[in-house]
Formats: sequence, C-alpha cells, structure tokens
Amino acid sequence: MSGSLVIVGLGPGAPDYLTPSASRALADATDLIGYSVYLDRIPVTGAAQTRHATPNRVELDRSRHALQLAAAGRHVAVVSGGDPGVFAMAAAVFEAIEAGDPAWRALDIRVEPGVTAMLAAAAEVGAPLGGDFCAISLSDNLKSWATIEKRLNAAADGDFVIAFYNPASSARPHQIGLAFDLLRAKKAPDTVVLLVRNAKMPDVSVITTTLADVDPALVDMRTLVIVGASATRLLARDGKAPWVYTPRAERDKV
Amino acid sequence: MSGSLVIVGLGPGAPDYLTPSASRALADATDLIGYSVYLDRIPVTGAAQTRHATPNRVELDRSRHALQLAAAGRHVAVVSGGDPGVFAMAAAVFEAIEAGDPAWRALDIRVEPGVTAMLAAAAEVGAPLGGDFCAISLSDNLKSWATIEKRLNAAADGDFVIAFYNPASSARPHQIGLAFDLLRAKKAPDTVVLLVRNAKMPDVSVITTTLADVDPALVDMRTLVIVGASATRLLARDGKAPWVYTPRAERDKV
Repeated sequence: MSGSLVIVGLGPGAPDYLTPSASRALADATDLIGYSVYLDRIPVTGAAQTRHATPNRVELDRSRHALQLAAAGRHVAVVSGGDPGVFAMAAAVFEAIEAGDPAWRALDIRVEPGVTAMLAAAAEVGAPLGGDFCAISLSDNLKSWATIEKRLNAAADGDFVIAFYNPASSARPHQIGLAFDLLRAKKAPDTVVLLVRNAKMPDVSVITTTLADVDPALVDMRTLVIVGASATRLLARDGKAPWVYTPRAERDKV
Repeated sequence: MSGSLVIVGLGPGAPDYLTPSASRALADATDLIGYSVYLDRIPVTGAAQTRHATPNRVELDRSRHALQLAAAGRHVAVVSGGDPGVFAMAAAVFEAIEAGDPAWRALDIRVEPGVTAMLAAAAEVGAPLGGDFCAISLSDNLKSWATIEKRLNAAADGDFVIAFYNPASSARPHQIGLAFDLLRAKKAPDTVVLLVRNAKMPDVSVITTTLADVDPALVDMRTLVIVGASATRLLARDGKAPWVYTPRAERDKV
C-alpha cells in the first residue's frame, strides 16, 4: 500500500500555535478528515485537496474512514485539536487499526504533536503546571465514573496539580461539580482553581478562584480546569489579575 | 517600565516544532537569555540582538538577570526547551519575581507555550498518553525523595500512564532504577515501558520494553521515560517496531 495517514494536532486554535511540521503535513495531504470545527480552522490551499467533515463524537467511524482512504492510496491527514495524543484522535486511530483490517498495520502512519490545551491554558496565567501534574478526562462516555473517582483520589493523595479535560458538556453538566466535591474532602479550601476558556484565542477568559468558591456552572466544554497542588500560589499585581504558579522547589529544599 | 519578558518554549528541538508565535517572540527580542545548548538552536537574525548564554542548572540566577534586563527597558526572551511551563524556565521566573524587586510585578511578562517532551516522545511511538496520565520530575534537587515516592505510589494507585522528566543525570544515575523498583511492587511485570531519546530529532531512538525487563542504565538526561497504565498495549507490525497506545475506552464500556 502506498497511502499514508498522519494525525495532526492543530494546537489551541490560533494558527500561530500550529507547528511548521504540522502545517506541512496538512498542506501535503490529499485528504483532510476531521470534526468540522477543526477543519474550518485550516486555510484552503491551492492544491486539490478533499475535505471530509464529520460531526463530533464519531472518532472511531472517522478513524476507519481515514484508514480506508489511506489503504486506497490516499495521503490522509486526520485533524485533531491540541495534541492528537492527549484525549484526541490518535488513540482512536490505533483502536480502529487494532480492531480492523490487518493490512492497515502496513500503512505509513505518523503522529504530528501539538500544543495541548493544558499548556495553552497554563501559559495564560503563569506556570501553574510548574510542579508534578496529571491530566484527567472527566468524560465517562468511555470509562466508568468509578475509574474517574479512583484517579481523582490518587491525584489528591499525590498532591499533583490536576488538569481536567472534557470537564463538562450539555450531556454531562454535573461531573465537574462532583469532582470538586470529591477534591474538597481531601484538599485545602484555599487550593487554587483556574477556569481557562478558549486559551490562546482572541476571546480567552480566565477565572482564578479556590476550591471552596469555584462555581461549577461556569465550566463548559471549551474550559480547561486546573486545580492546584498545595504549593500552587498567586502572585498579586497592581491593577491586573494575579499570576499563578507552582514553585519547582519545596520550601525545605530552597 | 517599558521593558518586557517572554518565556519561550522551543519545543523538542528541531525548528519544525517551534510555533510561529514563539518564532516571532524570539525574532522580536532585543535580548535572548538561556542555557547555551538552547540558544545554539536559534538562528541568528539580521536584527541586532544580544545573546546571554548561561550554563545549565542556574535557573534562578538566569531569571533574575532576565528580569533586571527587562526592568532596564530591554525586550527579553528567556529561552526554554519544550514547553516553558513543564519542568522548565517559567516557574523559575515567577519564583524570582516573588522573591525579588516588587517593581518586577509591573513588567509585561508573557509565556509562549511549546510542544513539551512527553508529547514529542509519545508521537514517536503512537499514542501511549491516550488515557489519563501524569508527569513527574525525578530530580530531587528541588524536592525531597519522599515527595517523589508519594507521587509514584499515587500514580500507580490511580493506574495513570506516567511520563518521567529528568529521569537521570550523571549526578543522579540511580533514581530511575529506584522508581522502577517501587512501581514493580504495584504494577504488573508486563506493563509497557518506553525509553524515548531525542524525540523528533534526527538521532531519535526508542526502546519498547516492560517493567520487568527495563534496564535503568539505558536512561540518561536526554531520555523521556513513559510507564504505561494497565491498559497500555502494543500493536505488532511486520518488520517494524510495534505501535504503542493507551485505548480511550475501558473494555467494559466499549
């Protein structure tokens, strides 16, 4: 088979955060396939290029379609937000390969990394991920809520900074509130909480609050939520929102 | 004060993974300051631009120097590998601000995100970070080994994929072996372990092994180590290294 498939991370949204390598992968493809919102972000090039826009939440169908196109000799770019390996399209493609046509394993398949949402969100406020951290998807579409609870408990026990992906959607409005409740039982009330919406986009918004005060109703699917470790702190500034950072050093090691 | 300071992530190394926004921040700076190895990766532009190369491991001194230059009206880019917010320069700059001249808080300070090492490493092999994951720095220069052990235990209890930054250096050759020992007590012997050296560089190398078999002597400061979750798996290919990925879906939710 002479086709190829590359899974491309678009970064947080603005083209300024798309790597040159990812740009070239998009330009070189004969076919772009992805959620329509992501495809719409990619400028149309002069080259003849077919676009296959699909709805959200059909990752496996989209992956199979992309693999079939590649198996037919096309050069396919599967378009993903952020980094394709972090709660995005790359794992879906490999799931489809494992369950699909054995010939797909002979395809030329590549992953183009990108700036994932938590890095863009962190950069908006300072360096909240400056210590050890974890990333948890709050969606229970593909895993049990018991697994999510186990990971929330472990993240609190380890005093990790926590970045929440997929914190809420119209079908799952309550889970971020449940997660805050669980963390309140284990972490201090003044633990820093950040709600960063549309990081590195023109309409970015940041709410800096605490675990005691955070309002889960302010979280939607465009929000990246960061819950600090015990060491995460604010740096006050006159007339501006504070910077937020997690020191690299423990107090007794400075 | 009219100076500014931007902390720039260079990504994994090759210029192809530097975002356009980060490129522009480097080009616009009057002063570049950073570890000499990172500075050497940045092409010299036509503009008059002063370079301040510093040795490794002097992050706070470098940060203070950068802040002094910005306070004197310069436009300073502090150069960092990967993403500056992940075990890199951003937290050091905010530490320096907190402990330093109160006037520094009025400076125009910005963070330019980048592709951090674990994303580049993951992209080399498939999608090992496809589930919930955590990132731990194994260096005990700035935190106690007891804290690191607490986090290793929590990461194992939560069945997170684990990415290790700073896994070993000439001064700390033994810690990655201790970490593997601790994880062996809690995780299955056939847990996937990846040693990815120089991800997205021409001399990249990947070792795919298991927790039972991994040789800690193969890990150095240029290696990003990924230890899988229980679900992380290999996809065999004829005549090529296997792909490695962590499914998004739990078996009983498919």
